Order: sequence, then structure tokens, then C-alpha cells
Amino acid sequence: MTKLSPTSLSARAWNRLEALRLFTDEPGKITRLYLSPSHRQAVDATVAMMREAGCDHVSVDALGSVIGRYEGKTTGLPALLIGSHIDTVVDGGAYDGALGVIAGIGVVEALRDAGERLDFAVEVLAFGDEENVRFTSNLTSSRALAGTLDAAGLEATDENGISIHRALLDFGCDPSEWASLKRDPASVIGYVEMHIEQGPVLEAENLAIGIVTAINGASRWTLTVSGEAGHAGTVPMALRHDALTAASEMALAIERLGAVDANTVATVGRFQVEPGAVNVIPAKIRFTLDARSPDDTVRAHMVEEIASACKAIAAKRGVALTIDRFFESKATQMASSFVNGLSDAVSRHQITPRLLPSGAGHDAMAMAELCPAGMLFVRCKGGISHSPHEAMTAEDCDVAIGVLFDFVRNFKSAP
Amino acid sequence: MTKLSPTSLSARAWNRLEALRLFTDEPGKITRLYLSPSHRQAVDATVAMMREAGCDHVSVDALGSVIGRYEGKTTGLPALLIGSHIDTVVDGGAYDGALGVIAGIGVVEALRDAGERLDFAVEVLAFGDEENVRFTSNLTSSRALAGTLDAAGLEATDENGISIHRALLDFGCDPSEWASLKRDPASVIGYVEMHIEQGPVLEAENLAIGIVTAINGASRWTLTVSGEAGHAGTVPMALRHDALTAASEMALAIERLGAVDANTVATVGRFQVEPGAVNVIPAKIRFTLDARSPDDTVRAHMVEEIASACKAIAAKRGVALTIDRFFESKATQMASSFVNGLSDAVSRHQITPRLLPSGAGHDAMAMAELCPAGMLFVRCKGGISHSPHEAMTAEDCDVAIGVLFDFVRNFKSAP
Repeated sequence: MTKLSPTSLSARAWNRLEALRLFTDEPGKITRLYLSPSHRQAVDATVAMMREAGCDHVSVDALGSVIGRYEGKTTGLPALLIGSHIDTVVDGGAYDGALGVIAGIGVVEALRDAGERLDFAVEVLAFGDEENVRFTSNLTSSRALAGTLDAAGLEATDENGISIHRALLDFGCDPSEWASLKRDPASVIGYVEMHIEQGPVLEAENLAIGIVTAINGASRWTLTVSGEAGHAGTVPMALRHDALTAASEMALAIERLGAVDANTVATVGRFQVEPGAVNVIPAKIRFTLDARSPDDTVRAHMVEEIASACKAIAAKRGVALTIDRFFESKATQMASSFVNGLSDAVSRHQITPRLLPSGAGHDAMAMAELCPAGMLFVRCKGGISHSPHEAMTAEDCDVAIGVLFDFVRNFKSAP
Repeated sequence: MTKLSPTSLSARAWNRLEALRLFTDEPGKITRLYLSPSHRQAVDATVAMMREAGCDHVSVDALGSVIGRYEGKTTGLPALLIGSHIDTVVDGGAYDGALGVIAGIGVVEALRDAGERLDFAVEVLAFGDEENVRFTSNLTSSRALAGTLDAAGLEATDENGISIHRALLDFGCDPSEWASLKRDPASVIGYVEMHIEQGPVLEAENLAIGIVTAINGASRWTLTVSGEAGHAGTVPMALRHDALTAASEMALAIERLGAVDANTVATVGRFQVEPGAVNVIPAKIRFTLDARSPDDTVRAHMVEEIASACKAIAAKRGVALTIDRFFESKATQMASSFVNGLSDAVSRHQITPRLLPSGAGHDAMAMAELCPAGMLFVRCKGGISHSPHEAMTAEDCDVAIGVLFDFVRNFKSAP
């Protein structure tokens, strides 16, 4: 086993994270929206980093993704893709997305430093449209590679009415080439993405790293409970049809049914009261459900149980209930070969392999439609992301890149 | 027993209600705020109605209250006061307040029509500042008579910075006389007020009229629950400190503890979520409690039980709870002589005397500090008030004035 120089390697990776965080559309914050000036700066910096790390070929594709290729034992072998994104939310953090790109660059750098060529090429991908903030779009840049993007996707606009198509032209890309970005499945052997966990599980279990089993599917509903307004002083408790207490009982049922197993979650995030006065019995509550599971069958059963429970509560209390099921996404399973290979690499680092689902979406969702995919999660402070308080340690970054490098070197493409 | 002409009497009363409803600051609505132009019109109309009904002396006092006096067997006897208010909320109804004034006028008219003089004088009072809408004040006009107003009360201002003092001058009153309005307790033998119920009890029990036992005391709190925000997809249920589900459990405890007896109520009316996004676990909930009872001891016990239950829920769930007890008012007991006398009059009308507390505040709260007080409630549609949908029937108005007249004629001042 080639001996890494982890300190030097991770120091360079950490410096690259520190360099990327400076590119922002809003001084004093990290706000790097897709196809913005700061995204252009980050693209240029990423190109330079990939070249410096030893990529044989670096390019920016028609959707602004940076692709750095490190050839295998011979030129033109199928590639293992390592990627994530370099866009951020408004006022976001330095690690969400960037870590996965920098880790891929670190792996190439370690291979180059070791003078090692593998039985496959390695490509590092830095996608640009993962956070779904600027445009009414989602995973545009990774879906282009997976071949699941359509032309209409480039017509999505930002709040100033600028389309992705227009913004790509301004960015220096040629969006007319979008369809040619689709990868031939024979040319790729898999996709692996490292990402901060964005949750508290690894921190709670004192683990630097975890292996993702699946990206959760999600159901989102708006529930509207209509009762009867009334004077808070004059309507006896027995004659009330209080929308708020009905909705409160539903929220507790959702909390209980959302814990059907350790990997399911269900959340009431919005909760709006009408009329919302101290001395008026609430007439109407509009609240949201967000229910997720790595298993679509489990999720389907869970949300039907929730619907039944809420309907029963409404009937018992004499209030009306309507449910608007406004969003649904299926779970994305990580390939078992990746889950196993990543687990083995984690074990070799004397870390207990912790399997967990991803509650948030990632480019891996799109890439899993193209090829087998896997994800590593890295512990982050307090489970916080999408915030200036997002944090992780350089030590964990070191461990994570070491594990990823180990996984890549030992990767065997499925027969 | 002098025979009334109820049809004629109630028709005139109903016409007076219809006349008063036309005085409004907002065309198409009933909005009659204290010391507004429409209040001035209503005062003038009330003066005319009192004169027409047979009052021997009608005046407008220094705070804009209309007082019509019908002498007893001799001039200058102590008076039984019959009153309510002629101001309304913004976009209110035609009966809240006005009914009690018109009923008093109807009683005087019935006495005059019957040529009857009693062992006491009758005074009809039309107060102007009951709804507490325009100024940061409360019951200014009735508290002046009760002697519980202080000079600072006239400095309360409206949203334009106009004080009651200034508005009274513009209204044509002399506010400097406010202190002289205090009635000598020897000159009054009691106060009776008829009002729409503003609740659903009488309608639910198919009764036209009820007798008030007490005006509820109230406790109002703001409760703030602080948990931990988190990604709705990534934080397992077991690691959450969800402020919303904690507050929901508290709302259900409040509902349960608020029903400690048939006359207590407890309401969560406001409920505000931070951050309030579909995919974020709520970090903070701010909600209100409004708890009322006709018995202060019962209320004190109830709210302490509520505080204990909420604290226990917070501790169990690992969230912080703060309670701001921002308002408290004591209950006002109606005089037993009035409760009994009104019950007897109701019984004589072949109606089961239904005793109930008042959940809302009334001028009777202020007047009970001056003299024995009683209230009659009249059935209203759906328990609705403070709304254009406020409604009652002419038949119930007829019954109510008949009962009030009967009560007055049979009234015996406490020895």
C-alpha cells in the first residue's frame, strides 16, 4: 500500500477549501449562486487547482461544470467520477459541496504524488447548480451528464427573468451543446461524492465519517384545518371546534408516526394561524408536512398512516381537513458495491462503518441514473449547514480524503 | 300586573336599533369609535330617543355618556341604572352594546306608556368607551361614574396622537368636569345591563335569555418555546428538540386543563413559528394563553396547573420555556340580589333561568365597583359578535325587554 503523506495532502486540501470560500457574490458572506460572477471565479480557481493537482485534462463544460481527468494505466479508460458542487445557498457555508470537489482533487493529487495510475481513469467534477437557489431548476449540471436534462430545463429563470440559457452565454459557455454532455454509460464506472453530513448523527456517535445507503425520498404536503372562530372568553370548551388544538394533535401524530423506524423523519415546519389573535379561537391552521425515508415503500406507508391519523383527529373534533400533496420525490439507492467498498475503506481506517441515509438531496441523485453511485458523509459541527455556522475540522477532512483515496485505489468496477 | 303592549314596544325598540346602526365612520360597515363623528351622531340620536320615550331629563356628561332619567314617585329618588354602550369595534355589529341602551329606553317607554312611577328613579346610560378600540383606554366613561377613573386616563391617545381629553373638547364636552361625574353611592340602587351573549351557550340550549353570574377574570401570557432548528431531512427524530411539537403538546395540555369546570376556558390564539420553512425543524414558537374563569381562585389554580404542565413538557423534550404573564384581570361578581331578581323575572316568562358567566368584559365591570350590578344575556346567532355577521332576532329582543321591564317593576332595593 502506497504510503500517503496525509499531513501535506490534507493541508493542501484545506487550503483549497479556504481559497474557494473567498469567492462570493456578497462580501462578508459565502453566497455563490450558479453562473454568478463569483461562480465564474470559483470555476477558474478550480480549473487551476485541478491542473496543479495533476489532472491530465481540465475543461469547463457547456453548463459550467469543471471536469478534471486523470488518466489510468492507458489513455481513454472508463472513468470513476468523483464530484460534488461549488455553488452555495445565500449566506451559506464553506464545506457544503466544496468538500467533495476538493476531496476529488486531493485524490488525484495523491495518485500523482505517488506516481500511480489505476485500471481506470479518475474524473473530478465540480457541478454548478445543486443548491437550486438562483433558478427555478434542480441539479441542471449533473442531470446534463446523466442525460436526464431536457431543453426546457435551460429556460428556467432567475428572479430577474434571466434564463439559464442566457446566463450560460454570459458565463462564456455554449449552452447549445447541452445534449452532447450526456455521458456514454460505457465510459463511466461509477460516481462517488463526499459531502458534509448536514445532520447530527456522526457527531452524536463520535465518528468522523459515514457511508450513505440511500438519498431519502420525500413527501411534502400542505394540510389545512378549518374549525370555527370564536371569542376566547365566551365559547365554552365543550362547544369549540378549535383549529389550533386539532392541528396540534395532528403535529404530535406526525411526530409519532414519523419515527416508524430510525431512518424515517417527519416534520411540521410551517404553521400559520388565522386569525391569530390572543382572544380569538383559531378558525384555520395551514401547516406543512415534510416526510422522508430511504425506502419508498416505508415512506408511502408512513404518509398514509399520517393521513389516516389526521383525518381521524379532524372527524373526532368536528373540523374540516384538506391535504394538498404538492411534492413527491423517490428515494435514490446507493449501489451496494459502493456501500460495501466505502465501508471496507472506512474499516481499514479503524473507524466503525456507520451506514446512514441522506436526508438532503445531492448531485448523486442525478448521477445514480447514469452509473452506480456512492456517498461518504463527513461529520460537521452541530449538524449545521446552509449557514455561516457550518463547520468541520481539518482532522476530519484529512481522514475523509484518506478514506476516499483508499476506496479509489481499491475500487473494482462491477463485472 | 300592568299589561305591556309587547309588539308595539318591541317594534319601537327594534326600529331604534335599526336607526343606531346607520351611524358609522365607515360607509357599508358599522364602525363607531369613541368620540368619532358617528359617535356624536349616535349620541344626538340617543338623546332624542330618550326624550321621545319619556325620560324627564336627558343630558350628555363630560365624557360623552348619554344619561336619561325617569323620575320615580317623587323627584330625586335614588336611581336604578340601566345601561350599556353605543360605541362599536371596527366593522362590528348592530347589537353589541346598542341592545342594552335600547332596552333601557324601552323600559322607560313602557313605564311612561303605563303611566307608572316606581319607588326609585330609572336612569338609562349610553356609555361611549367600552370597546377599547380608538384609545389606549378601557371603560373610561363608566369608570368615571364609578369613581375609579383618574386624570391620567384622559391622556390615553389614539393612533394619531389625539388624547381623549382633546377629543372630548372637539366632541363638545368639558373634560375638566370628569371628577364630578363620580356618583354618590347613596344616589344609586344598582346597575343592570342587557347585552348579547357573544357566545353560543343560549343558542345551543334553545334559550332566548340568560342571567350572568360573574364577568370572568382573565390571565394572558406569552409562552416562548426555544428548541433547536435543524434540517428536516437530516436530523433523526430521536435527536430533535422540535419547538413546534413541544408547543403542540402544551396547547393540548392547555385545552385539557382549561376545561377544569364548565365555566373555565383557556385558549391558544396566537402561534408563531421561527423559522417557519417546510424543510426546517422549528427552532422557536411564541404562543399566547388566554385563560378565564368567573372564580379567581379557580383561575389561579388553573393557570398554575398550566404552567406546571408546560414546564414538565419542556423539561421532558429538552426545550427552553419562558412565560411572560402580561395581563391579569380579576372576576367581577354580579350581586346575588340581581341574579335572583333577574332569574325570577325570567321564570315568570316561562323561560328556564340559565345562569352563566360572561367571558367578555362589559361596563358592568366598572359599575359593580359603585353599586350592586346584574346582567342579562340575550341569545345571538352562532355566538358571533364584533363582526358584520352579528345577529339576533326581533322576537328575542321582545322577550328580553319584557323580562327587563318585569325585573325593574319588581325590583326591591337591598335593605
